[in-house]
Amino acid sequence: MDSSAPFRLAQRAARIRPSIIREILNLAARPGVISLAGGLPSPDVFPVERIRTAVDTVLRESPREALQYAPTEGYAPLREWVARQLSQHQGLKVEASDVLITIGSQQGLDLIGKALLDPGSTVAVETPTYVGALQAFNPYEAAYASVPGDAEGPLPEALQGVRDARFLYLVPNFQNPTGACIGEARRAALADAARAAGLPLVEDNPYGELWFDAPPPRSISSHWPEGSVYLGSFSKILSPGLRLGYVVAPRTLMPKLVQAKQAADLHTPIFNQHIVHRMVSSGLLDDHVPLIRQRYREQRDAMQQALQRHLGDRCRWTVPGGGMFFWVEVPEGIDTMARLETAVAAGVAYVPGFAFYADQSRHNLLRLSFVTVSPEQIDRGVGLMARALGLSH
Amino acid sequence: MDSSAPFRLAQRAARIRPSIIREILNLAARPGVISLAGGLPSPDVFPVERIRTAVDTVLRESPREALQYAPTEGYAPLREWVARQLSQHQGLKVEASDVLITIGSQQGLDLIGKALLDPGSTVAVETPTYVGALQAFNPYEAAYASVPGDAEGPLPEALQGVRDARFLYLVPNFQNPTGACIGEARRAALADAARAAGLPLVEDNPYGELWFDAPPPRSISSHWPEGSVYLGSFSKILSPGLRLGYVVAPRTLMPKLVQAKQAADLHTPIFNQHIVHRMVSSGLLDDHVPLIRQRYREQRDAMQQALQRHLGDRCRWTVPGGGMFFWVEVPEGIDTMARLETAVAAGVAYVPGFAFYADQSRHNLLRLSFVTVSPEQIDRGVGLMARALGLSH
Repeated sequence: MDSSAPFRLAQRAARIRPSIIREILNLAARPGVISLAGGLPSPDVFPVERIRTAVDTVLRESPREALQYAPTEGYAPLREWVARQLSQHQGLKVEASDVLITIGSQQGLDLIGKALLDPGSTVAVETPTYVGALQAFNPYEAAYASVPGDAEGPLPEALQGVRDARFLYLVPNFQNPTGACIGEARRAALADAARAAGLPLVEDNPYGELWFDAPPPRSISSHWPEGSVYLGSFSKILSPGLRLGYVVAPRTLMPKLVQAKQAADLHTPIFNQHIVHRMVSSGLLDDHVPLIRQRYREQRDAMQQALQRHLGDRCRWTVPGGGMFFWVEVPEGIDTMARLETAVAAGVAYVPGFAFYADQSRHNLLRLSFVTVSPEQIDRGVGLMARALGLSH
Repeated sequence: MDSSAPFRLAQRAARIRPSIIREILNLAARPGVISLAGGLPSPDVFPVERIRTAVDTVLRESPREALQYAPTEGYAPLREWVARQLSQHQGLKVEASDVLITIGSQQGLDLIGKALLDPGSTVAVETPTYVGALQAFNPYEAAYASVPGDAEGPLPEALQGVRDARFLYLVPNFQNPTGACIGEARRAALADAARAAGLPLVEDNPYGELWFDAPPPRSISSHWPEGSVYLGSFSKILSPGLRLGYVVAPRTLMPKLVQAKQAADLHTPIFNQHIVHRMVSSGLLDDHVPLIRQRYREQRDAMQQALQRHLGDRCRWTVPGGGMFFWVEVPEGIDTMARLETAVAAGVAYVPGFAFYADQSRHNLLRLSFVTVSPEQIDRGVGLMARALGLSH
């Protein structure tokens, strides 16, 4: 019996499901629990006064434009700013007309799925990968092919084996969940292999500005622009609550993405686009983002020390050069999902690693975020976690 | 040859196309042309100072919440406000948990399509209907069945003939393009017929607050809540540029809509939701919307007089009791699309009626908007249009 009667659900609705990560975060959200589970940026670094100033200026100078319906493609000056930024820092030769402003980069993933995925189409993904992308592609009834990797990133020689995929989805900078950053040589090799395989690339870059030691290499897309879609976001450097991201796509694909966007919501809030344009064009990246980097770097260092202290000889991880996450491998046989409830009861939450695999999950991994917790909380949380996992000294 | 190479487009991409209305509006957007074509609200009635005050309060009292990631369902106090409002004015017994906040009501239509439409599924529509809804449903490869109507609205006895459709889409209040408002008895009869046919209803109400003479009857959904989805919007009463709308759905369907929303963009900008909640909870509807009604009513009256003066004995129309549009039937044999270029060259733009039909277009109709033009411009524009159509005295 169809419990949705009188509504008859589309076939794809069976693939529209709650996010397992969100369910885990709900489980972890208990008062008094130190959450190393979250994927939220620190609200301590929201530029509140600069937003207020930008709003004042926008409402004084252009209220009739900033509150009205607007072009689907986005606010032209913001598109121009993005194009300049990517030309300078990502090696992408793009113009404003190559940029579509979206509701966070998540919407970019949805539009890509809508334009490129038929039921049963394969999407090639990293192992592990960002689960929000799987969630975006699932309603289009995608299948997944996990591309094997090594310490440098996905293996270029593996791409021929997934050449029938509609595209390869990648987060090359400080990936969620692994924190890994693909090196320059591997980027070029991946782009070459993708071109040779006729396999388009979807490069998602929410964390690239959050580097602590050195900026990441230029985008993979810059090595094969006509075969690549690039996604960016203002969520991690400014505010997720404004929901602004962007997609850069070749001219062979962009019209379909714009038309899909128009069908989906007409356009991204133009008020928000005016506000963010005011902020970035007055130099936000130059003087605000370094503050975020410094704060997160200190917390990254605190987590590295805590992991060394509490788990040093039992577990493996790589120190992330940016972003928000450590990816920790615990000894075989410890199921991090099975231990989560014990950990939360003890006062600490993490995200079990199995949730980040498109298939063939591994169960002895976990993701830790260091950005919303103080160095003291980090040390205490990692210590509690070590005990809950049966790994304390 | 596939011009999108190396990208392979999904089958549905053939149905993702530019909006013909937008193309017409681009054609009509020439300097010096009086536009009776637009569908935009008047920027003269944007409550700019109230928005500024609301932003100040939000940034002072809850910046960490208003700028952070947020629940997919929406800001709880705004959902509560919507639920109360609909319970009081639309006869809907709803709670906050029945409300999903979306990017305008357009996104609600997209989510409904995603959850309910398979390729080839039929959507039953009014004749004519809102083309933005067709644009939202097209990417899901919908077919359409036009439901015949009379002066009172769609014919209840026609619903058995479309009982295999996934739903009937309706704009009962001051419809775009016709301006028509379905009466109370017809609403009840439509809901009864839909229930008997097992045909769900999707009721879209962007214009209901813009009544000039008397409020419209309570929602059709209130006659069959378990079979109806109701959509509303803040675009016409506050600002379209903030992109806030909402969907009310039965509990049998809501989880799929929420999960589809999460996959599509995680959530609606929470900053915007805080701002609008501040405004509506401080009584915006009571003291701002009457100003919009008064202004639009005067312009409606001016257009009625202009139509009488310039076209009175040659054309037919009904005076709309609210909303933004007149729907004018010109004599058979005059093709309003064919005459548009002449009209624009003469200094006035309208939207040809053929664009508003899912099938079986009629060509001797046109839509006129009265909300962004002064009474003087309305009179001059209608006069110019009469000459361009060969109908002047």
